[in-house]
Amino acid sequence: MAIPIASTHVANIDTPRPKDVGVLAMEVYFPRRCISEAELEKFNGVSKGKYTIGLGQEYMALTDDREDINSFALNAVTGLLEKYSIDPKSIGRIDVGTETIIDKSKSVKTHLMDLFTDAGNFDIEGVDSKTACYGSTAALFNAINWIESTSWDGRNAIVVAGDIAVYAEGSARPAGGAGACAMLLGPNAPIVFEPIHGTYMSNTYDFYKPNLSSEYPEVDGPVSVVTYIAAFDEAYSRFREKTARQLNLCQINGHSNDLVDNVDKLDPKAAFSLQDVDYALFHSPYGKQVIKGHARMLFNDFRSAPNAPQFADIPNPQAFLAALQEESLSDKNIEKTFIAVSKISYAQKTDPAMACSKRLGNMYTGSLYGCLASLVSNVEPSQLRNTRVSMFAFGGGCAASFFTLRVKGDTTEIKEKMNLMHRFAAMKVVPCQEFIDALALRMKNHNAVSYTPEGSIDNIWPGAFYLASVDSKYRRKYAKAPLA
Amino acid sequence: MAIPIASTHVANIDTPRPKDVGVLAMEVYFPRRCISEAELEKFNGVSKGKYTIGLGQEYMALTDDREDINSFALNAVTGLLEKYSIDPKSIGRIDVGTETIIDKSKSVKTHLMDLFTDAGNFDIEGVDSKTACYGSTAALFNAINWIESTSWDGRNAIVVAGDIAVYAEGSARPAGGAGACAMLLGPNAPIVFEPIHGTYMSNTYDFYKPNLSSEYPEVDGPVSVVTYIAAFDEAYSRFREKTARQLNLCQINGHSNDLVDNVDKLDPKAAFSLQDVDYALFHSPYGKQVIKGHARMLFNDFRSAPNAPQFADIPNPQAFLAALQEESLSDKNIEKTFIAVSKISYAQKTDPAMACSKRLGNMYTGSLYGCLASLVSNVEPSQLRNTRVSMFAFGGGCAASFFTLRVKGDTTEIKEKMNLMHRFAAMKVVPCQEFIDALALRMKNHNAVSYTPEGSIDNIWPGAFYLASVDSKYRRKYAKAPLA
Repeated sequence: MAIPIASTHVANIDTPRPKDVGVLAMEVYFPRRCISEAELEKFNGVSKGKYTIGLGQEYMALTDDREDINSFALNAVTGLLEKYSIDPKSIGRIDVGTETIIDKSKSVKTHLMDLFTDAGNFDIEGVDSKTACYGSTAALFNAINWIESTSWDGRNAIVVAGDIAVYAEGSARPAGGAGACAMLLGPNAPIVFEPIHGTYMSNTYDFYKPNLSSEYPEVDGPVSVVTYIAAFDEAYSRFREKTARQLNLCQINGHSNDLVDNVDKLDPKAAFSLQDVDYALFHSPYGKQVIKGHARMLFNDFRSAPNAPQFADIPNPQAFLAALQEESLSDKNIEKTFIAVSKISYAQKTDPAMACSKRLGNMYTGSLYGCLASLVSNVEPSQLRNTRVSMFAFGGGCAASFFTLRVKGDTTEIKEKMNLMHRFAAMKVVPCQEFIDALALRMKNHNAVSYTPEGSIDNIWPGAFYLASVDSKYRRKYAKAPLA
Repeated sequence: MAIPIASTHVANIDTPRPKDVGVLAMEVYFPRRCISEAELEKFNGVSKGKYTIGLGQEYMALTDDREDINSFALNAVTGLLEKYSIDPKSIGRIDVGTETIIDKSKSVKTHLMDLFTDAGNFDIEGVDSKTACYGSTAALFNAINWIESTSWDGRNAIVVAGDIAVYAEGSARPAGGAGACAMLLGPNAPIVFEPIHGTYMSNTYDFYKPNLSSEYPEVDGPVSVVTYIAAFDEAYSRFREKTARQLNLCQINGHSNDLVDNVDKLDPKAAFSLQDVDYALFHSPYGKQVIKGHARMLFNDFRSAPNAPQFADIPNPQAFLAALQEESLSDKNIEKTFIAVSKISYAQKTDPAMACSKRLGNMYTGSLYGCLASLVSNVEPSQLRNTRVSMFAFGGGCAASFFTLRVKGDTTEIKEKMNLMHRFAAMKVVPCQEFIDALALRMKNHNAVSYTPEGSIDNIWPGAFYLASVDSKYRRKYAKAPLA
């Protein structure tokens, strides 16, 4: 893919906005090793299904002290540049989303600049965005907005989203994972972001990392589950209200719009529902949360338009309509009923996007974009073309946005270049003890100074960057593993 | 100031971009206490002038464990909302720039949402941007771009930039400081940002914070000074090249432009020089670095157009023209000569913006915007109107941008509402031992759990937020100091 360099383009207030800004290319980086969650159940001596059904997890990628967030990002961006033959000079912005903080001041972005030094390109805007798993979506929005702003200089942007998700010993540990996504963004893209965002942000202590000397987060499990659902309800509602307002404007202006017919007279939010998208993607901390998110989307739709034909079979609808919003968040009957009702739509609209989550576990900021990469990998380009996709981004603390994209072009090249399913198959599924050992090594060397990582380079993909050393002034050096 | 709520505005690809996006309102928060750098020279037993002339510092704000970055941001935004009577519902985005990281995942932004809860406004995009002192400029660019994007929902944005700059015992400690700026951004503003950005980013270890269990940075002093100047040269050069390209385009298109006449036939960069701005603002880690930055701007101008009349008196110009770029960065003769040559222009164009730096010391991310606040405070609105201002943003690691703004409207309200000079005068100038004690208290309680800060609430401004407690799960509670 030859990306044109608009070298004569200069920022200008009078330049019209470029059209169809979205994903031109995509890459996912992940560690070479993973463990089986079914094996982890046996290893931990817990009941069968606790992780595989209870959490909905299948495998989880892992790494030791030989990799850090900088090497992850270097690998994701290198993969993107090399596989798509992108000219480093054609990049004018890089935004990074991560919550794997190994320096309170220096950004991952500054490390990525090493990849552009040979090309002499130091004029690359954008830094790191931080808010738990939502940092990636903030980074994405920032990159899109730059391209649509008067300051855009005609070049493309890269968004990098990645994390190493590790938990202290205990119930959250099986919900870890690792990986990073890199996306090339620009105009006239095959995957185009739509403008409306429904956002919810609030001051919560569901998931956070206040212990700076530890890699592990503080997680309030029950609060965390409710916060995800509450944030979904609010972000989705704002999105649907804004959609309804846009439809009203279209009607006032005499434009036709294919959604106008859907506007319910009782609740303007019914202007948009799950039926308006072909695929519904959700931030995936673990598979079960996504099943709950999908069901909750249907529950919201039901509350807005209970008489819609797709809800004819809801048992005892009055009780669900009468439930108070606050109580509904933890109402197991609501959850169970709508998970059951949404089984088919989950399988059609959400499961095709779960491949990364199933193989890599939680990528935190990378999770939602891993869903997008999975969708592109699992759905034939001819079938994916002309579909509409919803995205629910969530991060603890908390921050959430609901937005949509349209697949307007051919995704064949992205699917082939990522080659995700073959690369997943090439991962080493290792014994659970390796996972425990890797975490112990990470903990031992977290925030250490003057050391050489102990992890074996055999566990690094051939040709990939790894952390070579940290010197007496905490300066990090990276090297590349030998080619096979 | 009544900020209109464009409640019917919806994100739309066809909506034209709003015009004149910039600063509608501004506020600076700073601690109640400061120390005199002249007193600190005596206290530390160093030679007179070491801090006041060598570093160019006058006073330095300080705080103990009663304040953190969240309370700083809460105070800056509260001041903005209250002084300008801003409807919390009129805010659609908040971007925070900071490198005072007290949680690796949860953002300062999420704490600010508490100020919008009563108004029921949770639909506020934007998170925290991180790259040393440059995070504020990333946040600013992100907020402006949002307003210019198709996703803009018609509401205004707030940018918050603040830090608590503290150093380990040693030569860097007198270069600390503290404070936070908040800016309200929207269309049709009196202070309007121009679109061209010249940016330089690179992977350097000049200033960084890799020791996560400490508040203190790692600083490589000599590398740090050279990095600032090298980044200035590159960012300024990219800005000037883009300006030249814009002028060429204007000429090709038959437009007139007041800069066209300045285009030097030999070096296109001469299209822009210090003479094209009325004020030149620089990120200020300490005053002396800004003097050097201003001189370096003149040195760049000289190299592009050595025959320009303002350089007629440069002694031995051939030597300065022949100097290799790399060597010129640490050439004391160049520095000395151009500091001497730029004395008058520094006094006219840069010194009026140094009030915050002189009273508060380094605000890291807040520093450059403290310069803007100082300029608005020190220059009569009638004189400031219709001027053009250049801004040099820099952060270690490193990231830098050179950009410009135009004062198109009346700044009287901002000057009066900030009331900066009177509020500086009301600060308590305390003995240096209080500074040492405050830092000791901060160090003792940094990253602590289950504790109540020990610092006296008498040192908090009446009515301002302070950190009340940190519970067993690291959850932070804030309270307001009694009104006087």
